[in-house]
Amino acid sequence: RKMSSKLQSLIVETQEKFKATPQAAKVTFESRSALQEGLRSEVSIRQHRLGVDEPESLGGTDTAPNPVELILASLGSCQEITYRAYATALGIPLDNVSVTVEGDIDLRGFFGVDDSVRAGYEGIRANVHLESEASEEQLKLLRDAVNAHCPVLDILAKPVQVELNLHVSQPQAAAAA
Amino acid sequence: RKMSSKLQSLIVETQEKFKATPQAAKVTFESRSALQEGLRSEVSIRQHRLGVDEPESLGGTDTAPNPVELILASLGSCQEITYRAYATALGIPLDNVSVTVEGDIDLRGFFGVDDSVRAGYEGIRANVHLESEASEEQLKLLRDAVNAHCPVLDILAKPVQVELNLHVSQPQAAAAA
Repeated sequence: RKMSSKLQSLIVETQEKFKATPQAAKVTFESRSALQEGLRSEVSIRQHRLGVDEPESLGGTDTAPNPVELILASLGSCQEITYRAYATALGIPLDNVSVTVEGDIDLRGFFGVDDSVRAGYEGIRANVHLESEASEEQLKLLRDAVNAHCPVLDILAKPVQVELNLHVSQPQAAAAA
Repeated sequence: RKMSSKLQSLIVETQEKFKATPQAAKVTFESRSALQEGLRSEVSIRQHRLGVDEPESLGGTDTAPNPVELILASLGSCQEITYRAYATALGIPLDNVSVTVEGDIDLRGFFGVDDSVRAGYEGIRANVHLESEASEEQLKLLRDAVNAHCPVLDILAKPVQVELNLHVSQPQAAAAA
């Protein structure tokens, strides 16, 4: 209850701040990563660290989830956080939320076997489990609010402009030679 | 060199398998997560575990990256892995690859302040750094192969069909009462 009231105040105050000063809402997130031995990558996000790898069947050493699995984790956790935030903001009771996400991929795309097959997910299914004593009407209101405002759902369902810049340097050994 | 030749064999053998048996290329990845205290989520992907949270400014306890930061990590690591895989497959020298990814988001979308603002990223920029002694022609070939086959780039740049199913149960305390 205390947590919930603190979160509710933060949401209301943030909404008021962004209404008054739209520029304050424009933020940039960042990730830095570098490939290690094999297909393992080490990622830094602010003070956080995580590993990414591939299963052995895909050439990795399976020390961590792979990039397309992270996409599913991102959607599941974003749905959960958005359910909690909107339930709190709307005063709708929500005891627990958990999500299972499955993504179907045809690996002929990644492996370049058939260029008519897309490289990414052909479809994603999420099963969202709520524990709530809310009415059907409240639950419909909550679901619609979440699905209209969940950032990762929006990122997956609608195209995002991606700019890629390539920088090439000589290997350090060669440069020193 | 040994690693590289092992990866090259795996790629060639997998391509041949998928050409002969396209069904073998159809796989499903999965993520399971559950919201904990506050906005922290705990994720299971096969035998791997990771946390997701929000910074304090967004109502969390900042114990882990947030969902939209994971999207950037997913793109960066996927570019790296795809560069390594295609450089190996094409026999193009590549000593190192690292990526910095930035994503611009207008939080008025998530906070429901302005429904004309999208909830997700308005744009993503990736800076890909290669250490390579390859020729310009080889590098162009490599870049084009990577950007045509990188699964996460495809997922972000093109819409993905997302099916969401909502399941609601009574809170356990209420059900027991």
